[in-house]
Amino acid sequence: MAVSPEGAAERLRSLAERARRPHPGSRKCYVQGSRPDLRVGMREVLQSPTTEGVLRRPNPPIPLYDTSGPYADPDAAVDLAGGLPPLRAGWIAERGDTEASSRPPAVGTAPPGAPPVPVRPARHARARAAVTQLAYARRGLVTPEMEYVALRENVRLDELRRDPRYRDLLRRHPGAAHGARLPETVTPEFVRDEVAAGRAILPANVNHPELEPMAIGRNFRVKINTNLGNSAVHADLVEEIEKLVAAVRLGSDTVMDLSTGRDLALTRQWILRSSPVPIGTVPIYEALERVGGVVEDLSWEVFRETVLDQAEQGVDYMTIHAGVLLRHIPLTARRVTGIVSRGGAILARWCLAHHRENFLTEHFDELCAIFRSYDVAFSLGDGLRPGSIADANDEAQFAELATLGTLTRRAWAADVQVMIEGPGHVPLHLVAENVRREIEVCAEAPFYTLGPLTTDVAPAYDHITSAIGAATIGWHGAAMLCYVTPKEHLGLPDAEDVRAGVIAYRIAAHAADLARGHPGAQIRDNALSLARYEFRWEDQFHLALDPERAREYHDATLPKDAHKLAHFCSMCGPRFCSMRLTEDVRALGGADPEEGLARKAEEYRRWLRDEEGSEAAEDTATARP
Amino acid sequence: MAVSPEGAAERLRSLAERARRPHPGSRKCYVQGSRPDLRVGMREVLQSPTTEGVLRRPNPPIPLYDTSGPYADPDAAVDLAGGLPPLRAGWIAERGDTEASSRPPAVGTAPPGAPPVPVRPARHARARAAVTQLAYARRGLVTPEMEYVALRENVRLDELRRDPRYRDLLRRHPGAAHGARLPETVTPEFVRDEVAAGRAILPANVNHPELEPMAIGRNFRVKINTNLGNSAVHADLVEEIEKLVAAVRLGSDTVMDLSTGRDLALTRQWILRSSPVPIGTVPIYEALERVGGVVEDLSWEVFRETVLDQAEQGVDYMTIHAGVLLRHIPLTARRVTGIVSRGGAILARWCLAHHRENFLTEHFDELCAIFRSYDVAFSLGDGLRPGSIADANDEAQFAELATLGTLTRRAWAADVQVMIEGPGHVPLHLVAENVRREIEVCAEAPFYTLGPLTTDVAPAYDHITSAIGAATIGWHGAAMLCYVTPKEHLGLPDAEDVRAGVIAYRIAAHAADLARGHPGAQIRDNALSLARYEFRWEDQFHLALDPERAREYHDATLPKDAHKLAHFCSMCGPRFCSMRLTEDVRALGGADPEEGLARKAEEYRRWLRDEEGSEAAEDTATARP
Repeated sequence: MAVSPEGAAERLRSLAERARRPHPGSRKCYVQGSRPDLRVGMREVLQSPTTEGVLRRPNPPIPLYDTSGPYADPDAAVDLAGGLPPLRAGWIAERGDTEASSRPPAVGTAPPGAPPVPVRPARHARARAAVTQLAYARRGLVTPEMEYVALRENVRLDELRRDPRYRDLLRRHPGAAHGARLPETVTPEFVRDEVAAGRAILPANVNHPELEPMAIGRNFRVKINTNLGNSAVHADLVEEIEKLVAAVRLGSDTVMDLSTGRDLALTRQWILRSSPVPIGTVPIYEALERVGGVVEDLSWEVFRETVLDQAEQGVDYMTIHAGVLLRHIPLTARRVTGIVSRGGAILARWCLAHHRENFLTEHFDELCAIFRSYDVAFSLGDGLRPGSIADANDEAQFAELATLGTLTRRAWAADVQVMIEGPGHVPLHLVAENVRREIEVCAEAPFYTLGPLTTDVAPAYDHITSAIGAATIGWHGAAMLCYVTPKEHLGLPDAEDVRAGVIAYRIAAHAADLARGHPGAQIRDNALSLARYEFRWEDQFHLALDPERAREYHDATLPKDAHKLAHFCSMCGPRFCSMRLTEDVRALGGADPEEGLARKAEEYRRWLRDEEGSEAAEDTATARP
Repeated sequence: MAVSPEGAAERLRSLAERARRPHPGSRKCYVQGSRPDLRVGMREVLQSPTTEGVLRRPNPPIPLYDTSGPYADPDAAVDLAGGLPPLRAGWIAERGDTEASSRPPAVGTAPPGAPPVPVRPARHARARAAVTQLAYARRGLVTPEMEYVALRENVRLDELRRDPRYRDLLRRHPGAAHGARLPETVTPEFVRDEVAAGRAILPANVNHPELEPMAIGRNFRVKINTNLGNSAVHADLVEEIEKLVAAVRLGSDTVMDLSTGRDLALTRQWILRSSPVPIGTVPIYEALERVGGVVEDLSWEVFRETVLDQAEQGVDYMTIHAGVLLRHIPLTARRVTGIVSRGGAILARWCLAHHRENFLTEHFDELCAIFRSYDVAFSLGDGLRPGSIADANDEAQFAELATLGTLTRRAWAADVQVMIEGPGHVPLHLVAENVRREIEVCAEAPFYTLGPLTTDVAPAYDHITSAIGAATIGWHGAAMLCYVTPKEHLGLPDAEDVRAGVIAYRIAAHAADLARGHPGAQIRDNALSLARYEFRWEDQFHLALDPERAREYHDATLPKDAHKLAHFCSMCGPRFCSMRLTEDVRALGGADPEEGLARKAEEYRRWLRDEEGSEAAEDTATARP
């Protein structure tokens, strides 16, 4: 069963307590927007001063993009039993284009003795209004959600640029953006224009007012998604909420609830009411449960009811495998691993059983009408994605992609937001082609990829095989990276696997942003490296993607507190450390190091120019071995 | 102290016992070369038959490149107390160009009660002979070592190509090789020519006859290195040997002993006598110990004696930081992290203290003369490698690289093998430039890189930040990847960290080989994916880079043995599984599936051609959102 009454209430209270703890060495800070109810939460890492050597100085706080919402804020009201505060409720209400729903709520039933389900009355669009951020953007409106995204994406960078303490910390490589246009400062109007063009989505169901708005698009920071969910084999509701809290505290930008067991509505209701990030689902999973797991019994009617119930709960984006067409299925027959997407396989089986076209494709416009009434975004599923290196970039995959391109245009015509799901398993040299084709075929709709895994030979390490592909595809233009855990292909992830997966994907997304030259990316590297160089161990831990693990590993070799102040590290031991040298080097510059060192660099370049003539001669004279 | 007498002998015996266990589901097999004493060890994964569905068939064994030497062979004589069998002793002796050394052995002294040190009499070149594989190759000789490498690199691929059971398993993507020339079959002559051209090295000190010859060069499989070693803070000799055995069993191609504590010679002697893979060192570490850790007291004389002692012990390659020149040092002054290479910092400090040029550079030709007498290969160290993203690809780094290019030619002129060390910390978009420049400046001498880490923000996960860079640089042409463990920047790796580091780098090297289109790479992915698709769980584990961990993760969710035969996985549960579908799809083809499916694919392509005209029209008609 999904929730055990015994102890569930107590476990929730204890979880809320832990959830509110600030990030180590950090505090929550808020950037005030243009209206009193628009405050954008961020994290600020407080650094210690540099107390030794030539450069004694205080070190400024480093602001970081933060996905943890009211979690990690000791002053926030976190009541898991009642749901998070509905940040966007006022914004949605004041638009006046939604009304209370008359549909009976489908939020599941708590078992006797368990905490009551947190419920929020559902809304949908009045009459035939389009209540999507895409519709607003096309009308030229800048919604509070768009302003929120703009302030959030900037992470106070404009303010830092005016502050001399950050001058060196803001140095960065230009990057190779592969056609992405990353503005120095993201304005609300830029967000609006990106959403209006379909190049970004801002997933924000009117029934998920708890979420902090965020954007997915290649001209924004690369995002990551965490998958959670019970299966029929294993289920515990509080454990799922624990994973949700852990995932957003570690930096997950969205969460998908992929539960396939029983009590799906109940699990989802708890996740939605506890989530400050957009929630995605694959509704075909629940539709299949509703027909007792018999694929052949699926129908458009069952599916539509499932989607309506989920939309009323507040699901922000849904994976819809409408690109699995009858004519594509035979293209998978010669594959090494056939159809590996669960949703894709369900629909392919249905198509074959009935000798009919996919009902999702046939009823796509009706789906669009529903999505537009709640602002549910499409995540057009790649049901025919390759499940092995051998099957990468094959005809079946690209045939489906072409269909997704057509569907993208139909969704856009209905004012519905769209992103496109991508593979899967792809060797490194074929990764870029996936982005290039997606951009071309789907007219720059955001690309949301699963990995891709760059080899099949490392089960138990697929967070690594796929982080390699994820960093590469993010660099080339994927907008969101769906995480993979070490248990992929083997079993269900536990809390430690979720941690490993989220961190591997934070690494991939950040490596991609660095490579694209994102204006706000390198400051964290610079700050951490400088802290490392100056033996400010605590700052190093606090700036790390996983501060607890970094400290734990350090302490395994050098456990004493004194060592965290020591001017050496365990690799070199106390007698000599390479990092102590540069002060001597800087002293080479003499009384005015800046000027002296510039002179020395110029001397070197002069030497180099003189040398190049003679070396060229030497090259010709010296035979290669 | 480096070896505790109590229990050391017993621990060694127990280790030898464990070391000899075969890889799970595998057996050792040998390919016979042109002479009786040339037998190349490989691993063969035995697969179970496919027993259900349409395709009932046996599945052929999958041969794998194997670095474990006599370990993992229950029939091999593994006596750690006495050292491994001297595989190459006969080949070295019959060349007649070496003689017994008269230098007093410097192998360390076992503490009272500890097992006696395994000793092998040292040899060096007669008169002024060049006993390097480079010298032999230039003279047109194919040594047994070269033939060994050829057979080893092929992993019986030519035999498999003639066997119809492997037809589908040998399908592969063409790859993008970035100028590497990867022959379908590696011949002994090809190895000779690559070594003669300096594009590959075959590290094989005449005093390390235990090693199984291997090649490092971009026209061979990408290799990985594992660093081991005590530090002054932590030391246990048997633990180091345990890590060595674990590293080669997991697939490490070479091992560097980076010990910096006391009893260096003793540790190294044990490692060399226990190692079937080439051993590298950084002799400046020991030289520094010999002068009591006082950098200023280092001298060429102390260094030369250190190198001679290590060469007589059998070290196969040595990192020499001869590219750290006085004129380069000021170029590092404005860096975020200065000089982070320990060896680079030692030499920079020495240069500054004495206001003199690096003694390694001044005495480089004498070093060449020593190396040529033992066949020690240069690993020209990048003492000025960047230690942070900010410092990547800067003037200091490339100034040193230019010097390494000059030194490469001087070493080649003396018949000494050379590889070039590379960074470090590099954002993804600057990785390729490192390879391009190295190839150009160092005339294709093999590139041996540390990572590179693609971001600085994830201490405790630098095996992942760097595996991303390592896969990318390997794809672009790096020949060997030096592993990084999760403890990098934080502490000393324990056995679990070594495992995490080696597997992350096996992944990176394999992903690189797949992307380059190496003819022998994809068969393992194909076999594992097919096993996965057919629910042959045991085969999946056995083909995995880390079989034990894969099984353990599977068992965490589905522990019962019956589940390993079950036709479902824990992700989908027993009711529906996507992998069962393809048989139905194949049945679509009718009585002759091959012909029927080809017809269906052709129908699809015809539909696509018809559609393209109308879709192009539609694209023009439908406005983008």
